[in-house]
Amino acid sequence: MPVFEETSRASRELRNLPTIAQPLPRLTPRPQPRGRHAQTASSAPSSSSNGTSDDLERYEVVVIGAGPAGLFLTLNLARLGLTDDSLACFDAKPAALKAGQADGLQPRTLEVLRSLGLHSEILDEGCHMSEVAFWNPSQATGKSGIERTTFVPDVAVRARFQHEVTIHQGRIERILEENLGLYSQRGIVRNTRFVGYTLDDSEGGGVDAEFPITVTLEQRPEGSSSSDWDSAEVTTKKVRTKYLVGADGAHSRVRKAMGLRLEGESQDHVWGVCDFVADTDFPDIRKRSAVHSEAGSLMVIPREQTVTGDYLTRLYVQIKDEVSPEDKSVMAEDEEKEADELRKKRKYQEKRQKVTLNYIFEQANRVFAPYSIKVREDTEVDWYAAYQIGQRMTEAFTKQDKQGAERIFIVGDACHTHSPKAGQGMNVSMMDSYNLAWKLVHTIHGLAPEGASDGPGSAAASPHPVLATFSLERLAVAKQLIEFDTKFSSMFSGAIGASDDDEAVSSLTHDQFLQVFRDGNGFTSGCGIEYLESTVVQPVVASQEAPQGCARSPINPDGDVLNGCLRPGRRLADAVVRRFADANPRHLQDDFLSTGRYRILFFSSTDIHDLQGRTAKALAHIGDTIIPAFPKSMIQLTVLHPSRTQRFEWTDVPKQIKQHAEMRFHGVGVGEEDVYGVYGVDEKLGAAVVVRPDGYVGAVAGLDDTQALEAYLRRCLRTL
Amino acid sequence: MPVFEETSRASRELRNLPTIAQPLPRLTPRPQPRGRHAQTASSAPSSSSNGTSDDLERYEVVVIGAGPAGLFLTLNLARLGLTDDSLACFDAKPAALKAGQADGLQPRTLEVLRSLGLHSEILDEGCHMSEVAFWNPSQATGKSGIERTTFVPDVAVRARFQHEVTIHQGRIERILEENLGLYSQRGIVRNTRFVGYTLDDSEGGGVDAEFPITVTLEQRPEGSSSSDWDSAEVTTKKVRTKYLVGADGAHSRVRKAMGLRLEGESQDHVWGVCDFVADTDFPDIRKRSAVHSEAGSLMVIPREQTVTGDYLTRLYVQIKDEVSPEDKSVMAEDEEKEADELRKKRKYQEKRQKVTLNYIFEQANRVFAPYSIKVREDTEVDWYAAYQIGQRMTEAFTKQDKQGAERIFIVGDACHTHSPKAGQGMNVSMMDSYNLAWKLVHTIHGLAPEGASDGPGSAAASPHPVLATFSLERLAVAKQLIEFDTKFSSMFSGAIGASDDDEAVSSLTHDQFLQVFRDGNGFTSGCGIEYLESTVVQPVVASQEAPQGCARSPINPDGDVLNGCLRPGRRLADAVVRRFADANPRHLQDDFLSTGRYRILFFSSTDIHDLQGRTAKALAHIGDTIIPAFPKSMIQLTVLHPSRTQRFEWTDVPKQIKQHAEMRFHGVGVGEEDVYGVYGVDEKLGAAVVVRPDGYVGAVAGLDDTQALEAYLRRCLRTL
Repeated sequence: MPVFEETSRASRELRNLPTIAQPLPRLTPRPQPRGRHAQTASSAPSSSSNGTSDDLERYEVVVIGAGPAGLFLTLNLARLGLTDDSLACFDAKPAALKAGQADGLQPRTLEVLRSLGLHSEILDEGCHMSEVAFWNPSQATGKSGIERTTFVPDVAVRARFQHEVTIHQGRIERILEENLGLYSQRGIVRNTRFVGYTLDDSEGGGVDAEFPITVTLEQRPEGSSSSDWDSAEVTTKKVRTKYLVGADGAHSRVRKAMGLRLEGESQDHVWGVCDFVADTDFPDIRKRSAVHSEAGSLMVIPREQTVTGDYLTRLYVQIKDEVSPEDKSVMAEDEEKEADELRKKRKYQEKRQKVTLNYIFEQANRVFAPYSIKVREDTEVDWYAAYQIGQRMTEAFTKQDKQGAERIFIVGDACHTHSPKAGQGMNVSMMDSYNLAWKLVHTIHGLAPEGASDGPGSAAASPHPVLATFSLERLAVAKQLIEFDTKFSSMFSGAIGASDDDEAVSSLTHDQFLQVFRDGNGFTSGCGIEYLESTVVQPVVASQEAPQGCARSPINPDGDVLNGCLRPGRRLADAVVRRFADANPRHLQDDFLSTGRYRILFFSSTDIHDLQGRTAKALAHIGDTIIPAFPKSMIQLTVLHPSRTQRFEWTDVPKQIKQHAEMRFHGVGVGEEDVYGVYGVDEKLGAAVVVRPDGYVGAVAGLDDTQALEAYLRRCLRTL
Repeated sequence: MPVFEETSRASRELRNLPTIAQPLPRLTPRPQPRGRHAQTASSAPSSSSNGTSDDLERYEVVVIGAGPAGLFLTLNLARLGLTDDSLACFDAKPAALKAGQADGLQPRTLEVLRSLGLHSEILDEGCHMSEVAFWNPSQATGKSGIERTTFVPDVAVRARFQHEVTIHQGRIERILEENLGLYSQRGIVRNTRFVGYTLDDSEGGGVDAEFPITVTLEQRPEGSSSSDWDSAEVTTKKVRTKYLVGADGAHSRVRKAMGLRLEGESQDHVWGVCDFVADTDFPDIRKRSAVHSEAGSLMVIPREQTVTGDYLTRLYVQIKDEVSPEDKSVMAEDEEKEADELRKKRKYQEKRQKVTLNYIFEQANRVFAPYSIKVREDTEVDWYAAYQIGQRMTEAFTKQDKQGAERIFIVGDACHTHSPKAGQGMNVSMMDSYNLAWKLVHTIHGLAPEGASDGPGSAAASPHPVLATFSLERLAVAKQLIEFDTKFSSMFSGAIGASDDDEAVSSLTHDQFLQVFRDGNGFTSGCGIEYLESTVVQPVVASQEAPQGCARSPINPDGDVLNGCLRPGRRLADAVVRRFADANPRHLQDDFLSTGRYRILFFSSTDIHDLQGRTAKALAHIGDTIIPAFPKSMIQLTVLHPSRTQRFEWTDVPKQIKQHAEMRFHGVGVGEEDVYGVYGVDEKLGAAVVVRPDGYVGAVAGLDDTQALEAYLRRCLRTL
């Protein structure tokens, strides 16, 4: 017990609290609270010089929808620095999701959640899927029913988490919303639905040029049930905003207001889905299992343990011959008329008659034979549904104003819908938001340089070149998603190796299916996504004759990019390194948390102890010139060294390392993985890499070529 | 999007929420809410048959103090099933801790926190200490100042987390209290201090035999500052309880009321301690460093990163010649008189004059020479203090009633105080509580068998033999703590290798210090604690001639117990295994969560596929006879198998495995660690082990000897 104590109140108060992200620096003026959401609404007239004032609430970003995409966007925006004065998220539903729907998180999404500190409960309580079992009609003579053909790893590429996780979507939403509570007092505004917007960016009067979008919303009182939108209590409200994002799902009203529509066909069969506690002798019920039988196909998705200790299972069961060809248009989005709606409803009801819970289990048992499955006694089915979804997407994800600046965005299911078989839904949606969030805040905070503003056109000519890359990058991913899902789900719905087929053909068909599964792993794991060349992705030039200002690649051209080899546009893979300062093993990705900052990942060469060498010169340029040129904290340095066993002291390496990277200076422990090899860097040459705020490699350069990194960074970030 | 959805409301509601522990089954009647804390106080008269009724609040357990020990006890009791009707924790302070004090968590404490799901924030945000640096006076001729002698691993025994963690004590308390909020609406009752208790267990009138302890408390209104105890607003309140636990620190009022006192001497020098952000060229500032110089000793404890990205450092600095011999009695606990108090206060003030922040840093710089250290510019010192603590403990941790049943307990600093050098304080205290919690709830819920009640005596003769082992087990640990700390801190305060000493002697002295550090690692890591033989620890009999009902050891007698070899009384070490059902890698300790249940860990022998073999017979006895004999869920089965590569199906192993351990059946993955070897089990023979609710091995038996396990379990648990 101390004789006396002295504490500094200001600093110590923070030590107890959960860690919160440090907001990004802001170079633009903070928004003045205005309108009804401001505390001093009447005393804060518009400061806009080129428009008339009105009394509407003003936000910098309005998000519509609080599913995984909208919630994740709102949370990321808040963490990066948008406060309640600047950001609002409205959702039509009265409360958070309670059951069913998406439940799979791919390895890349887990890495991103890890980089936000949101991983623990998901990893601890979710179900891990490490292995996939493939089952096909028995090839043995005289045997009917299915047999296991093979096991394959669920994740075949390098990933920090070598598995997928399944966990209730509502639980993920709860985790996101709880974290949002650390940044936002208001949280999600529920019972509020989007009606329409106007973008008034004309030069004339009546306009607030800073907040050119007026959003019309309907609100109903708290405690309303979901069918209450016709009630007399519903009120209309308008707010102004700089940017509007629709994360309002497959039936997106924002998308419709933008004049966009989901295009593509409904190719899939009707499927039944059910979450329950299984009682079965099917051996692989706790593995992801793709089962093809002569009676149809099904997929087993093991799910998390419940609070009572039971393990949930999700089954996707193909409902054969439920849908005749003319039903294909049933889910078309663009037929919005009353009559169509009625026709749809009738068709749904017809199907519902057929796809009962009993029907799902009868069909599952036909597929599973000689095994059987039922709901475990004393347990209730959690949720079941029937669905029929094809692969469809919109042709654009944004709308620009007259100056060519992106103003209205859609993310998630509002942009792309597809079957749930490949477990992509929630992942691609959340990653849309993750891609958009930092670009929006960099633009709003004035951290991203402005470009030409000659009106709508290519990303390069956009007034906000960094923000313009959102649509470039995510449209390409959505296209890949649609292509993969089309291939995968049509193969999955087809028959494989029925016993009346020729045996050679059957096994080929299974091999083809497996090949699609394996080839798709880079995409389905999320770890193989590659963003195209743009302002924020500078491709490497292989030749030594690269023009001035262009990076020449110091990266092994034969390196395996799916297993960590660096490539601009791909995410920085994880590796375990040994921190110099404290000898702790450390995941390299933990130096690249999602705080909205750019990082330089510096691979020292073996000349690190030569204080006049290439390593020292490159570090001097980075530490003394590049980092100080940009706003404080916006560029962080991580340094790797190739010394394996040799002991050295801080005084034996260039001083910029301790100055800028004392706790981000790592080597390779004895007997540990060769990280230089993993990343494709020759330790005799070294390399310098810029990693974007979202963990994707932006640019790569040799140690003699750090001015190429500087040029890249000047395109991405404002200098002081 | 689904065509329709059906959800089961009751089950789905739970899917979103954080996981909560399932309460233990209760064989005794639930307590009826009574007194002022009951909702219907007036309509619930006493049901006690042998006493008069009164209107006092009644609890089954009252905990005094909400530091780490009290909070951890309360949380564990609540998780195991004691609700607000049954359990209350009172704390004198107006709010949770904000600064300073204990900050180190040892590997065993981390394992326990992991078993409660409370580890994530602590592991993610705490500072990991993997390596310790030892610094001594330079041995080089002509050089003054210190030099590094060696690095050693901070944790040298097998542990799931191969490091210690430092993190703000207040943050740990916040994490515990947040978790308590999932189980208790009331939470900690603050501004309430313990005044005294009476234990009225006479046979005569005026007594409620079920709730024999009356506790007197003083309460002051919320918002009072800590000096308000003399205010007129302070009210007195009495509550009744079955059990009372004092977790009220070194100055424990409960301990005094029990008539116990801390005994031992104040041997230590005066030390200064300071938490701050360091600016230093001392190379090992981010490692735990023990520095002996000619100018004195100090210890560096690296601490966590703050929310602003700075890294905290704690320094313990020896204050030389501050204390004259007669000061040794300054902290004596038993001199409570006014005059003594005043004398103490004056002495504290005198010291405070000397031990200023400047003094701490001046002395630190003398020790660190030729390096220097200061508080980093633009940062404030978090906290500093001076202290002088010896090694003292009480002779008993409990008071019994006339029937010999333990009724009043003390845990944590109330039982033992010692120096903070070895980083034990919070750990031993929390583990006192962890040991007590399940024994209390097993007793209260009627799960633990009753023993003889011939009055006070040995544990075996106690009316509650399981509960009686608390004091047996934790007194022995406290003694070890005192012994180790005495040795370690006196060596640490002594001079090593001063240049005027003989060199050979100096280096021997450092080696001796290192030896004490290393030998102590089993104890200081918490992983080498061994509980003595008792009702809940059945020693193994090595001989093949073991008497009937006694377990013969199937464990390798030469196995390394600090590296995992099983031994009754030691905690089950962790190992990574491969789960059969889903092929996931799995930490074996995750099958032994702190839910208050006993577990059988079954090591199948290589005859697992012989359905008539020893493995099959032992599993049949366990699954068909032992498990069903005890209350539902109270005995859980985990099964290991030694097959490394051979593929097999559920139908190839005894049916009890799928029946009782479908998700707790594990093997060894290819290329993975030999877990049978780690645990000292011969895979040709197998073994069956009972693991207690707190993760300690209770009993070990060969596969032919499972009746020995049954006998052990019948001593620990009531049968149906």
